Amino acid sequence: KICLVHDYIVTGHFSQTQIQFADQKQEFNKRPTKIGRRSLSRSISQSSTDSYSSAASYTDSSDDETSPRDKQQKNSKGNSDFCIKNIKQADFGRREIEIAEQEMPALMALRKRAQGEKPLAGAKVVGCTHITAQTAVLMETLAALGAQCRWAACNIYSTQNEVAAALAEGGFSVFAWKGESEDDFWWCIDRCVNLEGWQPNMILDDGGDLTHWIYKKYPNMFKKIKGIVEESVTGVHRLYQLSKAGKLCVPAMNVNDSVTKQKFDNLYCCRESILDGLKRTTDVMFGGKQVVVCGYGEVGKGCCAALKAMGSIVYVTEIDPICALQACMDGFRLVKLSEVIRQVDIVITCTGNKNVVVRDYLDRMKNGCIVCNMGHSNTEIDVASLRTPELTWERVRSQVDHVIWPDGKRIVLLAEGRLLNLSCSTVPTFVLSITATTQALALIELYNAPEGRYKQDVYLLPKKMDEYVASLHLPTFDAHLTELTDEQAKYLGLNKNGPFKPNYYR
Amino acid sequence: KICLVHDYIVTGHFSQTQIQFADQKQEFNKRPTKIGRRSLSRSISQSSTDSYSSAASYTDSSDDETSPRDKQQKNSKGNSDFCIKNIKQADFGRREIEIAEQEMPALMALRKRAQGEKPLAGAKVVGCTHITAQTAVLMETLAALGAQCRWAACNIYSTQNEVAAALAEGGFSVFAWKGESEDDFWWCIDRCVNLEGWQPNMILDDGGDLTHWIYKKYPNMFKKIKGIVEESVTGVHRLYQLSKAGKLCVPAMNVNDSVTKQKFDNLYCCRESILDGLKRTTDVMFGGKQVVVCGYGEVGKGCCAALKAMGSIVYVTEIDPICALQACMDGFRLVKLSEVIRQVDIVITCTGNKNVVVRDYLDRMKNGCIVCNMGHSNTEIDVASLRTPELTWERVRSQVDHVIWPDGKRIVLLAEGRLLNLSCSTVPTFVLSITATTQALALIELYNAPEGRYKQDVYLLPKKMDEYVASLHLPTFDAHLTELTDEQAKYLGLNKNGPFKPNYYR
Amino acid sequence: KICLVHDYIVTGHFSQTQIQFADQKQEFNKRPTKIGRRSLSRSISQSSTDSYSSAASYTDSSDDETSPRDKQQKNSKGNSDFCIKNIKQADFGRREIEIAEQEMPALMALRKRAQGEKPLAGAKVVGCTHITAQTAVLMETLAALGAQCRWAACNIYSTQNEVAAALAEGGFSVFAWKGESEDDFWWCIDRCVNLEGWQPNMILDDGGDLTHWIYKKYPNMFKKIKGIVEESVTGVHRLYQLSKAGKLCVPAMNVNDSVTKQKFDNLYCCRESILDGLKRTTDVMFGGKQVVVCGYGEVGKGCCAALKAMGSIVYVTEIDPICALQACMDGFRLVKLSEVIRQVDIVITCTGNKNVVVRDYLDRMKNGCIVCNMGHSNTEIDVASLRTPELTWERVRSQVDHVIWPDGKRIVLLAEGRLLNLSCSTVPTFVLSITATTQALALIELYNAPEGRYKQDVYLLPKKMDEYVASLHLPTFDAHLTELTDEQAKYLGLNKNGPFKPNYYR
Amino acid sequence: KICLVHDYIVTGHFSQTQIQFADQKQEFNKRPTKIGRRSLSRSISQSSTDSYSSAASYTDSSDDETSPRDKQQKNSKGNSDFCIKNIKQADFGRREIEIAEQEMPALMALRKRAQGEKPLAGAKVVGCTHITAQTAVLMETLAALGAQCRWAACNIYSTQNEVAAALAEGGFSVFAWKGESEDDFWWCIDRCVNLEGWQPNMILDDGGDLTHWIYKKYPNMFKKIKGIVEESVTGVHRLYQLSKAGKLCVPAMNVNDSVTKQKFDNLYCCRESILDGLKRTTDVMFGGKQVVVCGYGEVGKGCCAALKAMGSIVYVTEIDPICALQACMDGFRLVKLSEVIRQVDIVITCTGNKNVVVRDYLDRMKNGCIVCNMGHSNTEIDVASLRTPELTWERVRSQVDHVIWPDGKRIVLLAEGRLLNLSCSTVPTFVLSITATTQALALIELYNAPEGRYKQDVYLLPKKMDEYVASLHLPTFDAHLTELTDEQAKYLGLNKNGPFKPNYYR
Repeated sequence: KICLVHDYIVTGHFSQTQIQFADQKQEFNKRPTKIGRRSLSRSISQSSTDSYSSAASYTDSSDDETSPRDKQQKNSKGNSDFCIKNIKQADFGRREIEIAEQEMPALMALRKRAQGEKPLAGAKVVGCTHITAQTAVLMETLAALGAQCRWAACNIYSTQNEVAAALAEGGFSVFAWKGESEDDFWWCIDRCVNLEGWQPNMILDDGGDLTHWIYKKYPNMFKKIKGIVEESVTGVHRLYQLSKAGKLCVPAMNVNDSVTKQKFDNLYCCRESILDGLKRTTDVMFGGKQVVVCGYGEVGKGCCAALKAMGSIVYVTEIDPICALQACMDGFRLVKLSEVIRQVDIVITCTGNKNVVVRDYLDRMKNGCIVCNMGHSNTEIDVASLRTPELTWERVRSQVDHVIWPDGKRIVLLAEGRLLNLSCSTVPTFVLSITATTQALALIELYNAPEGRYKQDVYLLPKKMDEYVASLHLPTFDAHLTELTDEQAKYLGLNKNGPFKPNYYR
Repeated sequence: KICLVHDYIVTGHFSQTQIQFADQKQEFNKRPTKIGRRSLSRSISQSSTDSYSSAASYTDSSDDETSPRDKQQKNSKGNSDFCIKNIKQADFGRREIEIAEQEMPALMALRKRAQGEKPLAGAKVVGCTHITAQTAVLMETLAALGAQCRWAACNIYSTQNEVAAALAEGGFSVFAWKGESEDDFWWCIDRCVNLEGWQPNMILDDGGDLTHWIYKKYPNMFKKIKGIVEESVTGVHRLYQLSKAGKLCVPAMNVNDSVTKQKFDNLYCCRESILDGLKRTTDVMFGGKQVVVCGYGEVGKGCCAALKAMGSIVYVTEIDPICALQACMDGFRLVKLSEVIRQVDIVITCTGNKNVVVRDYLDRMKNGCIVCNMGHSNTEIDVASLRTPELTWERVRSQVDHVIWPDGKRIVLLAEGRLLNLSCSTVPTFVLSITATTQALALIELYNAPEGRYKQDVYLLPKKMDEYVASLHLPTFDAHLTELTDEQAKYLGLNKNGPFKPNYYR
Repeated sequence: KICLVHDYIVTGHFSQTQIQFADQKQEFNKRPTKIGRRSLSRSISQSSTDSYSSAASYTDSSDDETSPRDKQQKNSKGNSDFCIKNIKQADFGRREIEIAEQEMPALMALRKRAQGEKPLAGAKVVGCTHITAQTAVLMETLAALGAQCRWAACNIYSTQNEVAAALAEGGFSVFAWKGESEDDFWWCIDRCVNLEGWQPNMILDDGGDLTHWIYKKYPNMFKKIKGIVEESVTGVHRLYQLSKAGKLCVPAMNVNDSVTKQKFDNLYCCRESILDGLKRTTDVMFGGKQVVVCGYGEVGKGCCAALKAMGSIVYVTEIDPICALQACMDGFRLVKLSEVIRQVDIVITCTGNKNVVVRDYLDRMKNGCIVCNMGHSNTEIDVASLRTPELTWERVRSQVDHVIWPDGKRIVLLAEGRLLNLSCSTVPTFVLSITATTQALALIELYNAPEGRYKQDVYLLPKKMDEYVASLHLPTFDAHLTELTDEQAKYLGLNKNGPFKPNYYR
Repeated sequence: KICLVHDYIVTGHFSQTQIQFADQKQEFNKRPTKIGRRSLSRSISQSSTDSYSSAASYTDSSDDETSPRDKQQKNSKGNSDFCIKNIKQADFGRREIEIAEQEMPALMALRKRAQGEKPLAGAKVVGCTHITAQTAVLMETLAALGAQCRWAACNIYSTQNEVAAALAEGGFSVFAWKGESEDDFWWCIDRCVNLEGWQPNMILDDGGDLTHWIYKKYPNMFKKIKGIVEESVTGVHRLYQLSKAGKLCVPAMNVNDSVTKQKFDNLYCCRESILDGLKRTTDVMFGGKQVVVCGYGEVGKGCCAALKAMGSIVYVTEIDPICALQACMDGFRLVKLSEVIRQVDIVITCTGNKNVVVRDYLDRMKNGCIVCNMGHSNTEIDVASLRTPELTWERVRSQVDHVIWPDGKRIVLLAEGRLLNLSCSTVPTFVLSITATTQALALIELYNAPEGRYKQDVYLLPKKMDEYVASLHLPTFDAHLTELTDEQAKYLGLNKNGPFKPNYYR
């Protein structure tokens, strides 16, 4: 039986964040906080285009110029309640989904365990996320658990058309294609929710656009909605704003801040993607290179560890003295950027801040210096400052520009300052598996919670649920957990099944 | 000017802990939780002898058998308000203090910055801590800041007699020597607080014995006391009990749980001391050795990282799936102890749990296997189970026993299962510096806080104070912090002087 | 002044190798030894196709189907003494060359230093190598040093057409294009050497085909030839055979076995390319993966170090007890392949041996296991054994096949068992720079050597020359070498300018 | 059966070394080369006192002032043909030997395998080595193989008296004690060789003093001597001198230069002992410390790897561009000492050179800087330059001096500039096991070699023997070697039992 104990409400945890956010109200649309910067969430309303403008490789480039909205398509069973690029790509998409299934063992385990009870029986989930093979595994898991699903894309560029086709072929009502217009974007969302005789009772959102749309167009729908599960930092931010303003009318689950997700999305994932992204774009040899990493949070820690291991000489900049001290203890020289900017071969930003690498620094870099951003959006490097007449831009590869100074100096700018890891490397399915599992469990929890357990507020995942997600992924590593004896559990004052750590443990 | 902004009260943070502790009331004296297990705090009332029973090397072995209580000693200025082993050792102690000063730059910086204002002018601090060169640097800093100090030892074995002599020579009223009896212990504490015409207004405690004594004997003293600063997990635990029972009558500051202290005491310090402790006791070569580390919390992470770096093959056991997943991602095989117990060369416990290595496992270990404890107290290895007639114990070195099975198999047991890092390696002054600085700042904060800021409750250090402690230690590494621009601070919604992270950040 | 001291003849070094080689005469064409296995050298006569069969990405895919031999092309100065794909691609090739120049500082330094003296004035160099941007930098350096050059490709697939165009435009007589037939191959070589009124006096060969051709067709040419510089292990092998048979009629320089080249080609380069190759083909997450690396020579050491650093759990197999002991000391479990074959996620061969991974092992691997070869040619994995009717092959990406067992198990086979690093990652220019510099120095040495210094034998590079190559690359890292004082040099018995280590130092 | 194939004679290998040595004849006594610097060999004639002047901890400090030469002692069987400190310490020594046996598995394996044949039956071995528990295991192994042994110490300080007692009790004729005078030293050697009715036929020497003594006093003895096995670089150097002068009248085996021994003595051993030595002497925290390591040979590589892993920031100095390039690729900044001398916390010399750290650098170091030598003898740090009136020396611990400048600056000098690893840490038994096994095999080889196999020259160990030593140590790590199939061996042109690598492989 799926074990989902409701531990306790953790709203207290966020009182500080709410206060902090309050001060920034006016900047709401400009500043998603660093914490969730890898949530893949970029909606129309929030410059969603920056990260994905060049993600052409995600899908085939079909020559068909007809808008999906103008096409009449049916799947093999005659169903036409969907709108996608090309239903004929379903087979190829199915194979992608099958490959993804192999690296998403936790969802597959959930499917198996839940075969009997269907904990989502009766659930009508409307979703708005990236539409990829991994999402498909999630959707098919939700279906296996008993839910009906209608889905739109949270980003106009990120849809894998062939996966959308496979989902449509499998009977899902999917409204999404790669390269939607803004109008398409909202039209797709509307098609998901606005269906006669069908009303959603659960929302799975990534970026908050779906939630926003329902608030705006169909506020009465919330009467039947049991809860919102939101993944992105931006969406979470919006929910806290709503909550603070007293306008949040259903419980919401913040799945962005779980320990497991945070560590995997940042530390472990970036440790690999920094190397991958740099190699694929520049073929640079890491050994002996001097690198400065701006910011020593989880992302910076991952980047530094990887580059150090590959024989680079790594310098770190920080504003926070605690992280700074950690950098020292981990063996990195803590410097100001100005101290090393003339000598480094690679500059990597991981701060979540803006204008960390400004024109003045770019002017001082040496010929051939590589500049990239692993941190947040496209604000960290002041790319705009490079769009001046005296500098020449030369595109040498996809995602790689040479910016050339009048004296011939070339700076190698990657992904035009957008996120290197999203633009130039891949996110391992295993990492996405953790997020997807968390989303599924959050839906189950909210859907099955007895009345009164959750109020109209934003909740963090119970620690125990976080631990459960982790435990579902251990078999991948053939990892064998030790169980407490009764005596030990008593000694530690813990339940043998967890949770094992206090909620603030990171 | 010392910048000590009172951020906000963080009691919410601990409500969970209080509930958890409540369930374990009956085990109070037996189980200090894991969190504070490296606080060096062992008082009479809490089997203080276990960690220090063999710390003879901490001080000279004087042949003088006379009890200090029976001696008449004066320092060179004629002052005799102290009770120590031998005032003649003052010069040697002074040199030890001077050496310690070199590695405690933060306290020295505090002295300098505070020369003008004397933020502790009028403070009468009574203290009960280990009396070592590092404590002496703290005490002399408090004095430089304006405080009067009276001090006793929190452990009957840990006093460095020559340092106590130097302090007495310097005019401090110190009551402590190595090898006190239990009666001596309480007599010394009493001498600190019970002085006609002098009443303390601040308490600095390590283990809670001093606080306990005043509660029991001089409850009225609390009327003048502005606050308690407590370092040890045990003492903190006691304070939460008092608070919960409504009996805490002054504000208390928990300095045990700051990020900086936790990371240094555990991760960074253990990363070095595991190697040091094993080498000093066994001269074992690490390369190629198979090691199992039980527990992958901060201590386990430190041990694993160090041994992996030295060429050992490391296995990890865990009960918490989140830590287990971290171990996997960090490159360690996660196993049950029974899977590897026959093949490993070294077994290290870091769990905070009890009976992790039981007789059955010890029976299955191979000849020459080294067993030691980095975790908590002396409970992790079931040493008692080895005290049976069929096994022969042979002491081969200080802190090293061979336990010999009837078939000739030898297990190398270190420190009789007590903490290896306390018994067989040294705690770097730099780590103690961080704790001492935190204590000093906590005293200043509580002493200068406007009425009403702190209530009769237990407080965590404000994040900003924690960051300040870290910043005071950066110059040691010639580390240069970056400052936010106004624009960046506004973008991030942060004050340019911090705090930079939410309180829950670890 | 370029300092090229002739140290001493090191033929003794190779007597053993010669004997060893003698035993294998009959296998000559099948077995290039492991040592030189990364020399990029694959000629027609030696299954040159295997490594490059899929290197399509190296160059543009022009639609022009006309054979270059049938075209009439002239460069902008009217010169037509070349045969390449398309002279119009010269501009694009020039930019590639310029980019390469930035990472080949040693050759650029050679150009500068030699501006005055032209140490190759009068040299007529005929070359047969891969024709890439890096080779172009070498050729233009030789020209700057005074040499005339005529060049053919040593591999029918590896030519970068645009680079060949830039060279032709620059006045070099280049005969090479991507996708030559075997007949084309020899025709190009012949065009290089068979020119009325021009006779080469130096040979730069990679694979021995050019040398072979001259021996066969124009043996009299050797009267004027001052020496041969050979890079590949295969070519070197051939030269030793000639020498042993008393048929080598000019001195030859083996540039394959220099310390610097060996370390860079193997240890340092593979440390990076194993990660790169695996990521580009499979996007696999390294953290927590179980990997077995077969062979712990330089290549295996590089692979193991990289994967360990990325959080993989690495097992090693070895036949040589010395390398095995090194693996142990470096922290890897030394196993037989059969012990771990069922549990590993990735299998990597680095042995130089054949049939290391046979069908029996492939049958026992778990679903999803990735199998690749970093070692030698395509012999290490018995790929032929997978070409059986009961197994289905599915190409999922370029260079990635799923081999599917009847029960559905999939093995992920990379590059069909050919070299992963050549097929699926790039060789950093910096590594090629070391080789090219060594070749240039070897040419200078042989060309300028006084008569009698070199006999008709195969010579290793003098240690001092190897050190000189290294020193030319230090500025890339802003590395500052220390110089011996006179007193120290005398104490050590060394010349202040080197050589610093005995010749056998590796 | 012990498999000892005589591969081939490797004198060619050393022709270069001989030439090099010839130039330095006049410096013979001053400069043992770096290669053998860890051989523990310091005899009377060669300032043997420097490394051991403070090795008091090696043995008990007995109060008995009587010279062993003046005592009459018998072992329990009435034998008195020995001269040691105190026969009563035999039991304690026996336990030390038993402990050593556990970490010398190869010698124990040799004993077992050779039980039947006694390959040293008839051998009369006279030895002159350090007399420690590990040597005892070697001697008892030789005896088990059939040899008679007489033994003296090669160093006046290094004898473990209790081990000597155990050997004497066991029937060995040992002449050695801790604290011999120079006269004692030669007297002991003479007692070993000058015995009526007994004449040695094998010599096992460490430093060459025994060999020298026989040459000088009993040259006729060489008629019966079958060979010399020499371990130290100094002794080996002497033998080459003899050989070159045509005066070597028996074959000699150089066991100093085997790959296994070199790697273990330098890279792997120093990787651990640098940490151990620094911790035991200074308790310094490694994390965040800036360290400069002078020299990046095997010793430097080991030191750098360890310190980097512990979180230090490491700079490297080098004179050899090849090693310099390796340092770069391994991630270390290559600097001149003068560039970093003001900022580093620790200076470590590993050069084999002299006056690497001169007074000028010492003057510029910052307060508290730790200075130590891992390289060679006591020449690397110019300690003599610190013996000037304006500087004060303060001994703060055994092996630790504070040198104090007039302005109060203190430099922490370890072991007075002698080898840190010999003075302040221990050499793991496992490393000594490799050496001792090599010595035993060399004796067997020379003793059993058919006439004519070895001439009056100095021989390196056959590669195969080196591999055999390694293979005997693999079981310690439960390491499982892979065997070649017949087909693979043929493909590689190798014998299935080795040797697997060419002789020059390092």
